[in-house]
Amino acid sequence: MVYPTSLNKAKNYFEKFPGIGGKSAERLALHLLNMSLEEIEDFATSIKEVKTKLKECTICGNLSEEDICSICSSSTRNKNLICVLEDKKSLFAFENVGHFNGVYHILGGLISPLDDIGPENINIKGLVERVEKLENPEIIIALKSSLEGQTTTLYIKKIFEKKKVEISRLSYGIPMNAEIDYLDEITLDRALEDRKIISE
Amino acid sequence: MVYPTSLNKAKNYFEKFPGIGGKSAERLALHLLNMSLEEIEDFATSIKEVKTKLKECTICGNLSEEDICSICSSSTRNKNLICVLEDKKSLFAFENVGHFNGVYHILGGLISPLDDIGPENINIKGLVERVEKLENPEIIIALKSSLEGQTTTLYIKKIFEKKKVEISRLSYGIPMNAEIDYLDEITLDRALEDRKIISE
Repeated sequence: MVYPTSLNKAKNYFEKFPGIGGKSAERLALHLLNMSLEEIEDFATSIKEVKTKLKECTICGNLSEEDICSICSSSTRNKNLICVLEDKKSLFAFENVGHFNGVYHILGGLISPLDDIGPENINIKGLVERVEKLENPEIIIALKSSLEGQTTTLYIKKIFEKKKVEISRLSYGIPMNAEIDYLDEITLDRALEDRKIISE
Repeated sequence: MVYPTSLNKAKNYFEKFPGIGGKSAERLALHLLNMSLEEIEDFATSIKEVKTKLKECTICGNLSEEDICSICSSSTRNKNLICVLEDKKSLFAFENVGHFNGVYHILGGLISPLDDIGPENINIKGLVERVEKLENPEIIIALKSSLEGQTTTLYIKKIFEKKKVEISRLSYGIPMNAEIDYLDEITLDRALEDRKIISE
């Protein structure tokens, strides 16, 4: 065997992580040697705690160490404004931007008939229940622009059709700094469709 | 804070690893949720063991759980043939190829006057001591083609000048599958210098 047993074992674990190949796994495992024993023990504890301490917020599905996450329990967030997301990672992305003052709802997937994922397989029921309790609900659907994302967006739009709910979606368009001539046709077409009137 | 405490702590640790940025660290930390508790505990144990069990082979400097590594203690390896390497990673690379049947000597660095690293700061003394004990020693110097690599190569060559030691270095040249017209001039120049006569 090329690697000593313990190094090999750590390397094999690192290799199972997303986006980590054999060479990176070797580098990560070797980096452990540069860390102090205290750091390594603290690191080992932290990875165990991710598994043992975290659960899903019973309201929005966000990761939390409590039953209700810090966003849903915050008194400064607007509970009438719900941003609908596919997954937890999208929530972190929104929070990293830091401009959104409403709350979230994580679907945990997108409707995809080809993969046998219907509306009942994602948390749409929870969204309906939440919205029904609100007085002036507003929903922002922030799903990706794929076929599945658009199907799910339209489905949610339809559910609330007869209810007094303001529903919007994120605009499709040109990403910042992208060269127009390198954009794919669909993006360009959508950017045209979603065009905004320039106000003075 | 965007992330729950325990996730944030694990993410921060992953971010300290080489080549891992904020986004990758988030993905690695989130991947822990997909692992079973048993797997995570085994992973945590394995990273601790890398630190607690591994030491440097007293002969060659390779990582080992014993005082003498499996290569130096193997009866099938040619102890008269020593391949001189900069670091442990290079050793793994050679072993992964699997054609080299000699033993190794890890310098733990390269001579670099600019960084105040002299011959006494890397393990050249150990190499001299090893070679002196051998009857028909042969040394292959396998260092990178940088200025530091070449300086170290020439220095080792000079030390053994008056001793009966066969010394070679890896050839410089065209990497496999590289396009000639994309190669830098120095590589091309070296490939010309190191040219091989084509035998029938």
